[in-house]
Formats: sequence, C-alpha cells, structure tokens
Amino acid sequence: MNFDCYIPTRVLFGAGKLSRLATETLPGKKALICVTEDGLMEKLGIQGKVVGLLRENQVGSVVFDRVTPNPTRAGVMAAAALAKQEGCDFFIGLGGGSSIDTAKAAAIMMVNEGDLWDYASAGTGGKKEVKGAYPVVTITTTAGTGTECDPWCVITNEKTKEKLDFGLEAVYPVISIVDPELMLTLPYGLTCFQGFDALFHAVECYIATCGSEMSKLYSYEAIQLVCQNLPVLAERMKDKDREVRGDLEARSNISFAANVLCGYAQSLAATISPHIIGQCMGGLHGGFPHGATLIVTAEEYYKEVVKYLPQEFGEMAKAMGEDTSKYAEGEKGQAFVDGLIRLLEATGMRNLAMSEFGIREDELETIADISMGIGFDFDPYTLTREQVVGILKRSYK
Amino acid sequence: MNFDCYIPTRVLFGAGKLSRLATETLPGKKALICVTEDGLMEKLGIQGKVVGLLRENQVGSVVFDRVTPNPTRAGVMAAAALAKQEGCDFFIGLGGGSSIDTAKAAAIMMVNEGDLWDYASAGTGGKKEVKGAYPVVTITTTAGTGTECDPWCVITNEKTKEKLDFGLEAVYPVISIVDPELMLTLPYGLTCFQGFDALFHAVECYIATCGSEMSKLYSYEAIQLVCQNLPVLAERMKDKDREVRGDLEARSNISFAANVLCGYAQSLAATISPHIIGQCMGGLHGGFPHGATLIVTAEEYYKEVVKYLPQEFGEMAKAMGEDTSKYAEGEKGQAFVDGLIRLLEATGMRNLAMSEFGIREDELETIADISMGIGFDFDPYTLTREQVVGILKRSYK
Repeated sequence: MNFDCYIPTRVLFGAGKLSRLATETLPGKKALICVTEDGLMEKLGIQGKVVGLLRENQVGSVVFDRVTPNPTRAGVMAAAALAKQEGCDFFIGLGGGSSIDTAKAAAIMMVNEGDLWDYASAGTGGKKEVKGAYPVVTITTTAGTGTECDPWCVITNEKTKEKLDFGLEAVYPVISIVDPELMLTLPYGLTCFQGFDALFHAVECYIATCGSEMSKLYSYEAIQLVCQNLPVLAERMKDKDREVRGDLEARSNISFAANVLCGYAQSLAATISPHIIGQCMGGLHGGFPHGATLIVTAEEYYKEVVKYLPQEFGEMAKAMGEDTSKYAEGEKGQAFVDGLIRLLEATGMRNLAMSEFGIREDELETIADISMGIGFDFDPYTLTREQVVGILKRSYK
Repeated sequence: MNFDCYIPTRVLFGAGKLSRLATETLPGKKALICVTEDGLMEKLGIQGKVVGLLRENQVGSVVFDRVTPNPTRAGVMAAAALAKQEGCDFFIGLGGGSSIDTAKAAAIMMVNEGDLWDYASAGTGGKKEVKGAYPVVTITTTAGTGTECDPWCVITNEKTKEKLDFGLEAVYPVISIVDPELMLTLPYGLTCFQGFDALFHAVECYIATCGSEMSKLYSYEAIQLVCQNLPVLAERMKDKDREVRGDLEARSNISFAANVLCGYAQSLAATISPHIIGQCMGGLHGGFPHGATLIVTAEEYYKEVVKYLPQEFGEMAKAMGEDTSKYAEGEKGQAFVDGLIRLLEATGMRNLAMSEFGIREDELETIADISMGIGFDFDPYTLTREQVVGILKRSYK
C-alpha cells in the first residue's frame, strides 16, 4: 500500500449550509462570482442570495455571467480580465462544473501571464509550469462533477476543440459549500446525467493505475450510494406534483457521493479512457452534456473491458447491490455489466443516443483518434484503436 | 446528513516513504525533533537517518530527547523553551503519540504566551483562546494514536494529574510521513496495545454524537482492517525467528487504519467516555500505556452499553467479521461483544489487568469521578456514576 493524500478543501455539507457564507472566514474581500449565461442562478434567486450573504460577511462581489456548458478558454480569459478590471481577490464558482471550472481556471490566470492554453499539459498545450492561483470558493448546485473537492478543472479550447484537464493543488477550493437544498429543482435529465457522471468517476478511479486503498474506499462508497439512491430519486421524480423537499434524502446521498466522495477519489486517483472519450465528444459538440457523453458509450465500453479485471469489477458489482455469488469465478465482471444495465433501465437512460446530441457516425473514428492522442495514461489495460472504434460504433444510435 | 470536513494534512503513506523527507518542501529551515527519553529512536538509527535526510533537504535540526510516555505539561514547556533558544521554526514529532503530541503542544507554545495549561479547555485549564501554532511535521513509528492526521494533542498536567486534549486546526501536521517499515520492530505488547487503541478510536468515533456519514466511513474501514490484520500479526509474532519484513502487509494495513483512517475519523468526530476513563488512568499512573488503559475496561464497558445502540453495534460487529445474522434483531450488539472477546483472546489481551500497571482498587471511584468531571460530552447515551464505577469494578483484576 502506497499513496500520497492531500485534500485541503474545507467542505461544508448539508441542507441549509449556504447560510455559512455569511459567517465563514473567506479568502478575500471581493469575489468574482462565475455563473452560466442562461441566467438560471439569478432566476432561482440563488445568485441574489449569495451576493447578500457575502455582503453580510463584509465581502464585495461582481458577477461574471458568461459561462457556457463545456466552458471555453475564451470564457476563462474573459472572467480573469473582468476580475482584474474589478480588483477581485478571489473567485466563487456558483452552479455546476462549468461555473466552478471557469472560476478555477480564471484563478490560475490571475497569477500566470499569457494565455490559458500556454499552461495546458497535453495536446496543443504550451506545457508551461503553472505558478499558483487566486483562492477559489465553490457553491455547487448540481451533484455531478466532484470539482468542488478536487484540484482539477476541465476547459475546452474553442479553436482546436480540445477539452483538457488542468490540475494544480492551488485550485483546490478553499471552501466548498455543498448544500443539497440547492439541488431540489434539478430537472430529470440533468439529475440522471450527473448521477451517472458520479458513478463513472467512482468506477474509473477504482481501477485507475494511479489509485490506492484510500481512493478505492471513497469510490466504493460512492458507487453504493449512487446505485441505491439514483433509482429512488428517478422513481420519485416521475410524479411531477410531488413535494420536492421529499427528495432531499436521496438528493443528499447522491450529492455526498458525487460532490464529496468522488471529488476525493479524483483528487487521489484519476478518471481514465471513458472520460477522455466523453470529453472529446463534448469538445466537438459543445451542447452535449458531460454526463450524457459517458452514458452513451458505457454499456459497450464495460462489456469490452470487464474481462481484464474480473475481481475489481466483481467488487464494484457488489457495491452496486448485485448478488455476485450467482456468477462463476472469473465471470464476476458480468455482474457489473448487469448492474449497469439495470441502473440504465431504472433511470430510462439506456436508450440515450449520441446522435441526439449531434454526433455523426462519420465522426467516430476522429473521436477515437483525438482521445487516443490525448492518451489513456492511467488505464489498467491497453485498448487498441480497433477496440475504441468498436466500442464507439456499437454504441452509436 | 450534515458535516464539516477539513483535514489539510499531506499524508505520505507507504514502506520507504521516510526518504521523502529529503525532497519534500518542508515548512521551515530548522526543526526541533521531539523524541522519547529512552533513546530508542537513536538506538534504532531512525533519529540519525532523519537528521541526515533533513540535511540533504538543506534543513537544520536540534533534538529534544526528553519526551515521556503520557507526555507532560513540563515536558512541553521545556521543548518550546529549547526551540526558542535554538531558533527553530518548525517541529518534528518522531516516534509514537507522546513525541508527536509534545511537538504539537510545544508548537502551540511558540505563539501563545504563558503556560500550556492556560489554554486547556477543561478541568483546571485556563480556557484561554489559542492563537495559532508553529508548523508540525510528523514521522510516526507506531500504529496507534491517529494524532499524525488529526488536530489533537493529549498532555498530562504533572501537578493536577489531569490528562487533557488540546484541539486546534493549526496543529494539523503539515506533512505526516507514515512509513510502516519503521514499525517492523515494534514489540508484541505495544503492537497489541496500539492495535486496540486504533480499534477503540474507530468504535468510539462511530457512535459519538458529533460524528457523520463521513467519519463513519473511515471508522468502519478501520474496524475491518484492524480485526482482519491484528490476529494475523499476533500469530506471526509468536515466531520470534521469523523474518520481520514478512509482517509488512499486516503492519501496513493496521497502520493505514490506525494512523490515517482513525486520524481522519478523530478529526471529524471524537472519542468518548472509554477514552476519557483511560486517559484518567494514564494521568494517575504515567507508566500505564494508553492502549492498555482501554483494553482493561473494554469488555465490561461494551457489555454495559451495546444495549443502547443495537443497530450501530451490529454494523460494527459486521465490520469485525461477525456473522450478525445469527443474532436476533435488537440483540445485534451481543455480536459486537463476542467479536471483541474473540479479538482479545486471539491477541492474548483478555487477561490484561489494571493492577499490573499500578491501579489500586481503592482508586476506582476517584477514576470515575475525575472522568465524569471532565465530562462525556459526545456519548450517545448517559452513563450514571453507578454504571461507570460498576464497569471499573467488574473490570478490576
């Protein structure tokens, strides 16, 4: 057993925790609040509440409301420019992964000169060393990415269409407020996309070659919680007239898995090839939600790879609630595939088609090539181009 | 679900990790290294190695070699005085809990005037607010206390005989090196005392009223690892001629549980009445090893309390490896007691007697009174004086 563990984020988890923004010691006196361009945070009243709580805490703020899904290099540079112009000394990512990752990447550009892509460490990136960042506070309103508790941000280069990870200890959020009450109004599709995103973060980290007993502990618990609670929440959500506060327990459990446990797992391990393939699709088609990019290939991907790690997939199948004793030794991986199919069907996600999000069949080989060009560095098996193309083609609908 | 989580310690875990001391960015230029007065660290060659690795890292050091078991207020003040005299700017706790807690408490006295006891928050303590501390690095050579990854230190007042906790975020170790290779030569008794100390940290944190799903995750895993590995290690150690490197896997698993998982659990929750009673015995009889103070009352203590929380003790029994399906609903706590007795017998610890360590029968009521005077603030049940005295009397041998 051998690992390093460093997760300095202060997590404030629980219903109602947003109010702590008024009393916590914050890392600056004027925040740049990053929110998405759809104005959702304003419409829901969350943005106004955040500004008010900051004011109670004697902290000023300016809103940057031009974050896009699959946030771009240009958006990051614009956020950093506004923060400089307004004299902001820290960032708040308010919303989902896009807002938070914009805040993190813009925080990097406050102390590193030039362009964000000069510092990207893969693809066409300039591979320059990143020297620190401004402090970041996150307030998450979705239960998906884990970026709230990890040192990563994922940004798309709008020119090259690359979607790359930037990793840096300095962008661990100083404070991460995870308040499941803010997630009560998430729509059905997004709830499922993000639930699966969390599941796949956990699964990929569980088998990544850079993982450890420590990251596996977080992953295992996250798999259990998502598989127990996502079907419960999906079932409840079919009743449009329900009292949404009744969703709070399932939402809290999924949020704990997605926002905290998966953030920790990703801090100590890393996602692997399915995420790189998914990010590549998101890079090519900006409107393809990240969680959905993973769902559309999951069944075929795992059918292809469980044979390489029957023990690990068997363990994860157990966490999914499958009775693995029914499967022969060496066939335990099939239990994982069966558990995955069960979850996809319980949530109505098995029919999700990449063509719905604009992917054309003639792009599949390009997706394989771009993904493999980035590299599957932490995969515990070596996939050939033929295998990757095969997974994509069999997944295509 | 509702919790705060903040554990900023950088943990470097694994066989051979000590060497990282030569390359990590350390929090100062001159360390005061705290070690026990028995000279063990020097005899084992570990102290010299640490000094050499620091030198490689361009960091000076001075050794304070007057730490006692159940370290005292006077020892802490002497360590701080030496650090001031020598111009040290950070501390290294090298050894077990005593050395590390001396380093932590002395670090507090570098930036807080007066006497350590002015800042104790219970008993005869002055309850003054602690304003920060010098940075601390820990290098643990035992698998017991969890202080390597938590914000606590436990110090005895040699005059009043109180043994109290000091808790402060500033004393989270900046770096915690946990290298199981340093634990290969631990003798049998200490190995068992510390293994049980870890178990009871996990168990107490699991039921403490200040715990959460997050702390329970760490506790559960720690209980599993200790109960699986301590009997294996105890059995191996019966062969005095074995190759001690063969113990590394069991030692690593116990160390991961004790030094990391229990440290995390204690950071997020707290130990409860059994620890307060044990610390009280250690305060009265300085030579009574901490782990042993817990073992001598454990069987009677848990026989008394499992009835209050059958579900939680049933869950922990499962982690211990007990088949809880054999017990009726509501009787699951008995499975925990049975698991505990099995572990005490497997390790030869069931006959450990407090009289061996100098406790007289006529002290038992005093021990109950001092303990209850400190207060069982996080107990999930309310023990009467009669119950506490009863546990102590039935445990006495």
